[in-house]
Amino acid sequence: MTQLTPIPQFMHFADSLPLASGKQMASYDLAYETYGTLNADKSNAVLICHALNASHHVAGVYAGDDKNVGWWDNMVGSGKPVDTDRFFVIGINNLGSCFGSTSPAHTNPETGKPYGSSFPVVTVEDWVNAQERLITRLGITQLAAVMGGSLGGMQALSWTLQFPDRLRHCVCIASSPNLSAQNIAFNEVARRAITTDPDFYGGDFYAHATVPERGLRLARMVGHITYLSDDAMDEKFGRERIESLAGDAAYGFNEEFQIESYLKHQGKKFASYFDANTYLLITRALDYFDPAKAFAGDLSAALARAKAQFLVVSFTTDWRFPASRSREIVKALVDNKLRVSYAEIDASQGHDAFLLEDERYIHAVRAYFSESVAKGVAA
Amino acid sequence: MTQLTPIPQFMHFADSLPLASGKQMASYDLAYETYGTLNADKSNAVLICHALNASHHVAGVYAGDDKNVGWWDNMVGSGKPVDTDRFFVIGINNLGSCFGSTSPAHTNPETGKPYGSSFPVVTVEDWVNAQERLITRLGITQLAAVMGGSLGGMQALSWTLQFPDRLRHCVCIASSPNLSAQNIAFNEVARRAITTDPDFYGGDFYAHATVPERGLRLARMVGHITYLSDDAMDEKFGRERIESLAGDAAYGFNEEFQIESYLKHQGKKFASYFDANTYLLITRALDYFDPAKAFAGDLSAALARAKAQFLVVSFTTDWRFPASRSREIVKALVDNKLRVSYAEIDASQGHDAFLLEDERYIHAVRAYFSESVAKGVAA
Repeated sequence: MTQLTPIPQFMHFADSLPLASGKQMASYDLAYETYGTLNADKSNAVLICHALNASHHVAGVYAGDDKNVGWWDNMVGSGKPVDTDRFFVIGINNLGSCFGSTSPAHTNPETGKPYGSSFPVVTVEDWVNAQERLITRLGITQLAAVMGGSLGGMQALSWTLQFPDRLRHCVCIASSPNLSAQNIAFNEVARRAITTDPDFYGGDFYAHATVPERGLRLARMVGHITYLSDDAMDEKFGRERIESLAGDAAYGFNEEFQIESYLKHQGKKFASYFDANTYLLITRALDYFDPAKAFAGDLSAALARAKAQFLVVSFTTDWRFPASRSREIVKALVDNKLRVSYAEIDASQGHDAFLLEDERYIHAVRAYFSESVAKGVAA
Repeated sequence: MTQLTPIPQFMHFADSLPLASGKQMASYDLAYETYGTLNADKSNAVLICHALNASHHVAGVYAGDDKNVGWWDNMVGSGKPVDTDRFFVIGINNLGSCFGSTSPAHTNPETGKPYGSSFPVVTVEDWVNAQERLITRLGITQLAAVMGGSLGGMQALSWTLQFPDRLRHCVCIASSPNLSAQNIAFNEVARRAITTDPDFYGGDFYAHATVPERGLRLARMVGHITYLSDDAMDEKFGRERIESLAGDAAYGFNEEFQIESYLKHQGKKFASYFDANTYLLITRALDYFDPAKAFAGDLSAALARAKAQFLVVSFTTDWRFPASRSREIVKALVDNKLRVSYAEIDASQGHDAFLLEDERYIHAVRAYFSESVAKGVAA
């Protein structure tokens, strides 16, 4: 195995992108990275879609910055499940995300000021449309696979509906056909934490040289609770006090328990780099995703357009997107006589499991790529 | 059945109360209500302990204010499961709570200013000590029962350990022997929402004629999510849009889904009456409660002091205090050869179920009081 050292690239789009909202992105840039080599007949391309807090930097490290490891580096690389010796892998940063593609913090060329609150609300379908344009510009007619976890899995699923002929395989991990009321509720708490932070300034905080740090911290704390299983949290933190307390109560309201200290740390770190408007946009895209909506809630009818073969993976302790939600997808695929492999992994880590090492999970993805996805790729 | 019309009463305590923290409450008042009549041998008294957002107003309505119904009015009253024709029922507002007993918003007689941030942190054990003083002043040597749900159940359980000879029955509903890391995490999000609100002023907002409304709203929103089951939320709100949207997306960040509108309403209502410092105090008391801690985590050893008979009730969809936590209590009681009845109710409403109507639940409590608790009460 050789360590990948990708170089982030940017593609400019001058043709406006029509959005689900009825608005347009007049022009925009997408940040992306590629790993491996596109083969002669361009049949070996795999697109990786990211979730809330990730980017085009999927695998490897940047030259001279070996701490900055791609978010799915355990999955994508030379000799890894998505083997870059065999596949040409593309990571794209979505429109509105704060890691390089055009986002609310960027200057709106029409006004000369940051987009801020004027950045349009984008949907999963809008992102897939933007991704398709980039894929097309790379000369790829049909992707070997589109793969993603969580919100990334929703994009992979949406590819099979928006562009059924443009991909052969869909790998949809720890995802859901839509958000439950509880999922939306958690998103709403995070959004209200941000929008009611006096430093948010209605989304135009850039002009005030500040960021709604309090809101972002709270948003991340809430998020983290939903990423971990109750059991994983108990195993990792339990009721342990922070070391300086030596097991005793301090009878105050500062951090006393390890879990409080962990959440504080995660919140602080997140607020130092994540954009508040991006948080609103991405959670709203999650809320809106619901391919069955136009079919009176009938997911089987919604997936009738799909032509891809599927790998669906879920994790038993994921209570954000429980296995039952993945099984809904599997059922709808089976109803349409589509080929689907389903792996329900008995992992303890909750939703986060899709980013972690689990031998059975890693093996399931590896086997699917080497045995199924590779079949359609010229040697 | 006659409708109860209780009158809130106040009892002043001039003898200082030593607290778990090492501090003292020099003097304080407790608000309480009573229902029914104490019998001649004072054997029919039942103490009801409240949870986060409740008070001494357990049952009935105040004269001339028939909207203000007690929080457990379906459980306590004439002809009801805790039958006030037979039992003398006492509701007490805990120290630090904002419904009448001495609390952070009250004037500290030593300074002439509101206690605010100087109000001492109190524990479940402190509350039980204060309750015991009030019971003693009422002339009651032994309570027929102590009963509570959620945090109230923790107080009932603690009574059996702090004053094993002062009660015959403990009714512990939808409770837990301690908080899990996830429980603490949710409390911490709520606390940080409050303490980072610029209107909190370190707990001394009273002097600024403001309240940390943003923080309180967020705290309540998070709380509400944990009170309801995922299924109950889906059944009640699903992915329904608010009426004015007629099912469409508005492509913005205001409330669009019914669940968002519900949480906003609940948050706003709560912030209009609940005290921010009380929220901190009560969640901290929850965090700290852990009778097994002094016994190296061995709950059976911790409960060896108990002498009461028990009714333990849990609800299958309660994910805040899952049935498995109640079963831990039951196991520890059985280990000590204590008499315990356990009802695990298959209810859909989550933690909130303990406050709602469910025929099997209501019946279990009714049967326990009429068949077990009543046995020790003189006719």
